[in-house]
Amino acid sequence: MTATATRTSTLTATGEALRRALDGPFHAVKQRWRDEVTAEDFVRDPDWDIPTAREWALDKLVDLAAREFAIAGFPEAQGGRGSQAESVAHFEMLAMGDLSLAIKSGVQHGLWGGAVMNLGNQWHHETWLPGTITGETTGCFAMTELGHGSDVQSLETTITWVPEAGEYEVHSPTPGATKAYIGNAATHGKWAAVFGQMIVDGENHGVHVIIVRIRTEELGPVDGVTIGDQGHKGGLLGVDNGTITFDHVRVPRENLLDRFGGVTADGVYASTIESRNARFFTMLGTLVRGRICVGGGAASGTRKALSIATRYALKRTQFRLPDLGREIPLLDYQTHQRKLLPNIAKAYAYGFAQNEIALQLQRMMDAQGSDSTAVRELETRAAGMKALLTRWANDTIQVCREACGGAGYLSENGLTMVRQDADVFATFEGDNTVLLQLVAKALLLDYKKTWGDMDMRGTAQATARMLGGTFLERTTAKAVIDRILSGSKSKDVGSRAWHIEMFEDRERHTVEGLAKRMRAAAKASDSFAAVNACQQHMLAAAKAHTDRVVLEAFIEGIDETDDPYIASILNKVCDLYALATIEENRGWYMEHERFDGARSKVVTEAVDALCLDLRGKALELTEGMGVEESWLNAEILR
Amino acid sequence: MTATATRTSTLTATGEALRRALDGPFHAVKQRWRDEVTAEDFVRDPDWDIPTAREWALDKLVDLAAREFAIAGFPEAQGGRGSQAESVAHFEMLAMGDLSLAIKSGVQHGLWGGAVMNLGNQWHHETWLPGTITGETTGCFAMTELGHGSDVQSLETTITWVPEAGEYEVHSPTPGATKAYIGNAATHGKWAAVFGQMIVDGENHGVHVIIVRIRTEELGPVDGVTIGDQGHKGGLLGVDNGTITFDHVRVPRENLLDRFGGVTADGVYASTIESRNARFFTMLGTLVRGRICVGGGAASGTRKALSIATRYALKRTQFRLPDLGREIPLLDYQTHQRKLLPNIAKAYAYGFAQNEIALQLQRMMDAQGSDSTAVRELETRAAGMKALLTRWANDTIQVCREACGGAGYLSENGLTMVRQDADVFATFEGDNTVLLQLVAKALLLDYKKTWGDMDMRGTAQATARMLGGTFLERTTAKAVIDRILSGSKSKDVGSRAWHIEMFEDRERHTVEGLAKRMRAAAKASDSFAAVNACQQHMLAAAKAHTDRVVLEAFIEGIDETDDPYIASILNKVCDLYALATIEENRGWYMEHERFDGARSKVVTEAVDALCLDLRGKALELTEGMGVEESWLNAEILR
Repeated sequence: MTATATRTSTLTATGEALRRALDGPFHAVKQRWRDEVTAEDFVRDPDWDIPTAREWALDKLVDLAAREFAIAGFPEAQGGRGSQAESVAHFEMLAMGDLSLAIKSGVQHGLWGGAVMNLGNQWHHETWLPGTITGETTGCFAMTELGHGSDVQSLETTITWVPEAGEYEVHSPTPGATKAYIGNAATHGKWAAVFGQMIVDGENHGVHVIIVRIRTEELGPVDGVTIGDQGHKGGLLGVDNGTITFDHVRVPRENLLDRFGGVTADGVYASTIESRNARFFTMLGTLVRGRICVGGGAASGTRKALSIATRYALKRTQFRLPDLGREIPLLDYQTHQRKLLPNIAKAYAYGFAQNEIALQLQRMMDAQGSDSTAVRELETRAAGMKALLTRWANDTIQVCREACGGAGYLSENGLTMVRQDADVFATFEGDNTVLLQLVAKALLLDYKKTWGDMDMRGTAQATARMLGGTFLERTTAKAVIDRILSGSKSKDVGSRAWHIEMFEDRERHTVEGLAKRMRAAAKASDSFAAVNACQQHMLAAAKAHTDRVVLEAFIEGIDETDDPYIASILNKVCDLYALATIEENRGWYMEHERFDGARSKVVTEAVDALCLDLRGKALELTEGMGVEESWLNAEILR
Repeated sequence: MTATATRTSTLTATGEALRRALDGPFHAVKQRWRDEVTAEDFVRDPDWDIPTAREWALDKLVDLAAREFAIAGFPEAQGGRGSQAESVAHFEMLAMGDLSLAIKSGVQHGLWGGAVMNLGNQWHHETWLPGTITGETTGCFAMTELGHGSDVQSLETTITWVPEAGEYEVHSPTPGATKAYIGNAATHGKWAAVFGQMIVDGENHGVHVIIVRIRTEELGPVDGVTIGDQGHKGGLLGVDNGTITFDHVRVPRENLLDRFGGVTADGVYASTIESRNARFFTMLGTLVRGRICVGGGAASGTRKALSIATRYALKRTQFRLPDLGREIPLLDYQTHQRKLLPNIAKAYAYGFAQNEIALQLQRMMDAQGSDSTAVRELETRAAGMKALLTRWANDTIQVCREACGGAGYLSENGLTMVRQDADVFATFEGDNTVLLQLVAKALLLDYKKTWGDMDMRGTAQATARMLGGTFLERTTAKAVIDRILSGSKSKDVGSRAWHIEMFEDRERHTVEGLAKRMRAAAKASDSFAAVNACQQHMLAAAKAHTDRVVLEAFIEGIDETDDPYIASILNKVCDLYALATIEENRGWYMEHERFDGARSKVVTEAVDALCLDLRGKALELTEGMGVEESWLNAEILR
């Protein structure tokens, strides 16, 4: 426990208040990190080789867990706090230190621990969770195979019931069945939650998960299990990714994580969910936290990068002011403001949206997934936000690197490692392109539910008559959004009602158009080709939806801010977020005659003006993003 | 010399012909690499630590130079071929192997060697160039300082004439004067071409360059020179970047690279160029090759990444075709085609444009820079292309990484190291944002030259009457462009004349608007603020100009292709390049009423259709990009 007075005292009052607002319901959880965790606790040296980075990550995970960080998601009975929402907040804070460490904990506590917790029963919890929390019982989440990444239902590993022995046999029948990219596999894992096809009496009951020992307590080999080290990667050198194959490995019946189905003591398969498909998606649904964490972690890394680049841009000068001789700080240049400030605005927008989705996760867990609509909505948002936040992270960290010039490329300035580590966030926990298609499919289901089999002409007419569009499911921001929409009808680019209208309109129209095309495609002679031709449209619909969800969360977050001065700053930041997003999509708006060229230019001018205006609050906004200055660890800021 | 029959025989005939067309005037030079250079000669292991990577880079440089690769730019008298254009082609081929090695050679042969060659006299050539070619006489290009990166004219290092000793004193007066990010400095460099302010008798004659010894032949320290190692970077681990400072280091008078000015044997300063400013820009102008190489090298790395991702997408399947059961190759998906094919089209476009600029460089060197308009035009294009190609490289290599999923993140698959190495190409040889502003300023000069002081109303009217706009300086493609424009007037999205018109129109209108704004800004009370507000507009103008130059080069390249079948394929690729670029800028076109929303959607549909069409030629187009399959070194392709 380090004395913190000296650290926090450098914060401006506005910066601290912004931080409190953006932390929202998680302020206490997050502030404990800032008060108690130092750079030495969780910031990695970019120069370390793989073995050093891997050992460091495990050491720090054990240390932080002992201090009750990053383990809030576990049941209180086993030493956690029983809060999934808090566990997301912990992951976000870990990610402000180091993404390898965050992913190491994500593998150990989140994925492995989460599988045991969410798919197992009380006995599994008591047997594996206490050691999982401390980092003693190291485990893998062995889902992805070489042959099948995105297509999880086609996994080839088998979990075959052997009646005469009363146990299961886990086997990798083909090279493609090799478990791959598995964190904790290459070095540390003793156990694995293995995903495979459950075969009982020759019948396939679909994908199930079973706990298999892969190393002894002394980390020695186990018969029938072959482990490979996937070695050097584009980043995340502290995470020991590896391959695992199984050669007819026998596993006790009790090891099956059987919350949703398994072979009973009588040797027959039983499940609470009849449909194989429904069972599969129910199981996966309980693991949605991983996606939420990945989006939030990528956003944390981005906030860190933005903090470094913005603080540097405030002090670094280049070229002289003509006539005056004074050199000009980088952040005074319009191009530099344009690089950083809209991204800071997005950092706030995504931060508020992340708070909301963490709470939504908690509500779903509290209800034990009983509200299937809520479950599906959460999954849709988690998929959309994961895709958007990780895309933004990769793009923005790169912008930050370039905004720091050559210095940004030196590892000692903290940017290149975040960029390299965040890269694969676009891929794991679901490839972004595949996730956006999942979102689009869910939106089409919503759409169909609302409109049923009404023919398309009728649908279009009905939609045109509607204001607000009921098929757009409202987020929890419903009350405040309705209040805004029922108020001012101003079409000024600064009008929040206009922003909402533009975001909603883009979503509604994109989804409607997609529904129309998909219905036609289903009837086409080559339906694969016809549906395939809608893929880009699907991505557009998914992004439009997620943008709208994020805007609503931002508006709700501001509504919950008591301090009117802070709310006024956040409103400007929200203006910038909304207008920069509208500007990015101005091609769409003009194509669909939502506004004309003159209006589009006014939007661009408004974004420029907001950048110039908020440049005066750049330090405070940077502080508000919540990354302790002492964690930045950038030589250029010393 | 490896037998090559087995390697080249795997090429399709179409792929080989496309390769020949894209190599253009450099086919023989480039084919010699493919015939004689193997992966072991120049492909680096991504797992190596810094010392190993650095020694490997120097070893390979020495080896390749001994085989007469990468040294074509030096005078024949010293062992080169006296061809700057060929030296650019060599750099591009080096970059297909490894970007660290390319940059190591770029530092040694291009920057250090280029400074001696272009700024020195015969004696400098004879003294330093032979060893520079072999890699024995290792040197640094010591321009950038910690305090001043983009603003080279404000460098603080001094080169002071000491009359009583008849020699110069090189000194770093402040910490900001420290030379930084200097390749060859940290480990290997024996010499440095040091940029500093030339002070004679208290008068500053501006930036000059002098050769200073920084290490002994045994690589030991030299009095007065302090060298630092900048250690781990975001990539380019094979390049030994470091810092250098000088403490009153005395240097013989003869060491000044005095082609454009220096102190005579009589102890007085003399220069063939009177203006300090003109002298500075003339000196920098001779070094333009570096920028051309950086753009070309980034493009080579991107072609390699595209080759890996496309070959993988042709063989990797994921998800089953509904009903049929067959798994679907990734490249059959529309989203995947959209990721790769427009970028392959850009690879061709930029390849043809790169050939053209290399030839233009040669013409400028042959004329010894006597045509100042040609010099300025070359500098403008080099700056614009460097900015565009390196931006495209970073974005596209990332797309390729993601298109290969988790496998793309494993270093053994060859993508992550290219991505990390290419990153800083956006910064060195000129920050992209600064370079685009240089381009815009040059365009404004052209504009002013054409229109003189005609008032803006008159200008606008005159412009409106013009077709083709004389202020758009034509590239060497003038004849073929004029022929196309005088032919079909079709406005079909497949019409080349329409593409040209759209590219030209965007450039002309953006530059005109900028000229108008800049003229007004110059008269504003706060002229910094007013000019600053035009920065984003400057970037837009520079991009529009460079896009047009690239399109013209592509059209010219096709015109020079004899084989009508190959030309027909290239025409489709050019359609895709042109339409994808128009699509990216559709917001601008609609804002300025160049086309409406309906037309915009037709453009998007045409891009989709071309992607689907060219998917059938994906292997051939990949081969045509010119990267030997054996150089790809990707485990996923084995």
